[in-house]
Amino acid sequence: MKRICILGSTGSIGTQALEVIENNKEHFRVTVLSCGTRIEELSAQIIKFNPEIAVVAKAEDAAILTKRHPETEILYGMDGLIEAAESDCDMVLNALVGMLGLQPTYRAILKGTTIALANKETLVAGGKLITEAARKNKVRILPVDSEHSAIFQCLQGNQENEIKKVILTASGGPFRNYSLQDLEKVTREQALKHPKWTMGQKITIDSATMMNKGLEVIEASWLYHLSGEKIKIAVHPQSIVHSMVEYMDNSIIAQLGLPDMKIPISYAFSYPERLEMKSTGLDIFKDGANLTFEKLDQSVFKCAGYAYEALKKGGSYSAALNGANEMLVQLFLEGKIRFVDIQNILGEVLEKHESVETSDIDHILEIDLETRVLSKKLALNI
Amino acid sequence: MKRICILGSTGSIGTQALEVIENNKEHFRVTVLSCGTRIEELSAQIIKFNPEIAVVAKAEDAAILTKRHPETEILYGMDGLIEAAESDCDMVLNALVGMLGLQPTYRAILKGTTIALANKETLVAGGKLITEAARKNKVRILPVDSEHSAIFQCLQGNQENEIKKVILTASGGPFRNYSLQDLEKVTREQALKHPKWTMGQKITIDSATMMNKGLEVIEASWLYHLSGEKIKIAVHPQSIVHSMVEYMDNSIIAQLGLPDMKIPISYAFSYPERLEMKSTGLDIFKDGANLTFEKLDQSVFKCAGYAYEALKKGGSYSAALNGANEMLVQLFLEGKIRFVDIQNILGEVLEKHESVETSDIDHILEIDLETRVLSKKLALNI
Repeated sequence: MKRICILGSTGSIGTQALEVIENNKEHFRVTVLSCGTRIEELSAQIIKFNPEIAVVAKAEDAAILTKRHPETEILYGMDGLIEAAESDCDMVLNALVGMLGLQPTYRAILKGTTIALANKETLVAGGKLITEAARKNKVRILPVDSEHSAIFQCLQGNQENEIKKVILTASGGPFRNYSLQDLEKVTREQALKHPKWTMGQKITIDSATMMNKGLEVIEASWLYHLSGEKIKIAVHPQSIVHSMVEYMDNSIIAQLGLPDMKIPISYAFSYPERLEMKSTGLDIFKDGANLTFEKLDQSVFKCAGYAYEALKKGGSYSAALNGANEMLVQLFLEGKIRFVDIQNILGEVLEKHESVETSDIDHILEIDLETRVLSKKLALNI
Repeated sequence: MKRICILGSTGSIGTQALEVIENNKEHFRVTVLSCGTRIEELSAQIIKFNPEIAVVAKAEDAAILTKRHPETEILYGMDGLIEAAESDCDMVLNALVGMLGLQPTYRAILKGTTIALANKETLVAGGKLITEAARKNKVRILPVDSEHSAIFQCLQGNQENEIKKVILTASGGPFRNYSLQDLEKVTREQALKHPKWTMGQKITIDSATMMNKGLEVIEASWLYHLSGEKIKIAVHPQSIVHSMVEYMDNSIIAQLGLPDMKIPISYAFSYPERLEMKSTGLDIFKDGANLTFEKLDQSVFKCAGYAYEALKKGGSYSAALNGANEMLVQLFLEGKIRFVDIQNILGEVLEKHESVETSDIDHILEIDLETRVLSKKLALNI
């Protein structure tokens, strides 16, 4: 029986993770559930999964839930998340959104708990810190992102030093083949409609700007010890091939499937074994009958280029990239800047950022905060 | 230094295997070379690779080579092949054509030598005998066929009992989308022109009739302990995806690359490691930009159906299928029957064949011979 702590249980990854667990009750038990503000959903999950701990964002929500669920310890805020991440369990699934995920991941690693990582910002902002801590504490970080799970699956039975390159696939998002001018006219509604995946708002906007692919480039670099030159992006609108690894003998291993996050989630949960899935899989003659791959136009979608730049420059550059992006996406969602401003202002922020070596987690959080403030200033002309 | 015995060194696989060895002299040494009648090519190979043993088909050719190459022991005939297969080495690459390969493989296995298998007829005719002997003698059979190497690569880090199905890809050969009527008019020249792979005559004709894919279905069944229901064929004209494995969690792992037999050859030679290839690999944006998959029309190409039937019926049925096919391909190459007669007469032969359990290698050879005689009779109306 694997005891699993789920941080971010009411989001897209969290709810699908709970589905996987429900279908495999004999293998898994939920020890922690957590949400931000969706306390009704969390309350229903608590009744169903009877966790030892549940975490919410605010003290007042915690008070409400404590009355309703006396058998579950209700915590709140970042302290609550950290306490939950450090609680007794075999695996922490980090499905939090954004920088929020950094500290709980770090603390779980220090405690020696295996991480199932769906929160890519953790590695983008704190890649060096996190991977070094994982190495020192002999903690395995299992990827839950579909692309990184694909790479991880393609790596089984092979050595990292045999990799010639990794090909990260991208659906291309809702604005594939758009020109820069077309991007100027994009609305919030259009940007929130992803053609292939149903996800949270932050990652959906990141997918539309292609920043998501940039963040994934950085994540892959940390997870698999690859330089930026060894990570390529291929636009693959069908979203069937989730990524590929090319080896030094010119053999390429790819992972395919329907766009279903339950596959990478269950692989992380049951690794190195696989869980039986009740649903029908990909029909290669239908959904997979025609698979295409094209280059990403980085002169239109500039965010991917920023990520490669961040890998080259190292230090705090990635944390700045991530902080600025989170702020700009938020401002776009609030209707305060245009879609195309996200990448434009991001470019300005990064130009102003002077990369330094990050020393510890507080330093990373500091850089994150500074960059958010700067981004907001530039965005709102204040 | 791995000592490699190459049976069939002047054919397509053999010469490419020698290229791989030449590019990796620090890892491999050739101990045996062999050919049928191309003794001039073999002679040049002997000078270059200085093997301990060389084998030819005929005694008179052996006499000629013995004079020319006094430092190499020259053997001949089936006895020579068997002696070579049993000689001191770390691996026997069986790149012989047809049933000729069965006995040397079997004897090498009894001797405990690892097999790199390019000769699929060995497993089609003697699957049970060969795989049981390999299991008993703890001998690994490494696939060299591009499809089976693909499956083998996709299986790394996974368990055979996690396989939901295997998808064997097929280029579709030169007559893809032909009707039965179109097949009636096919010439020898057309059939010998494969759109994607340059190979020997036997396998090129097998690829045109799709019997090759049928033989591969049987080979995959023995290599990976799969029933016929778990092996599907997908026509994939680009020949970039060499095969796929779908697991019980709906995740599919595929192996891709340019159609280059040096990839599977070098993987078998260096397994579980990979060798560096000097050439550029697949450009996913060019050769891999558009990958398609379609069903095989088994009402036109009947040979694949015979193979599934053989798996269902078991016993000697596969050996009969293989013997009949070898004879009919030979008769077609000699201009004695039409292209479409291969599958038609094959159907007749199999209908007449009464499957029995095969007891030993002599029994298999007997069935092979009987079926050849019967096929020739039916083909030539004698």
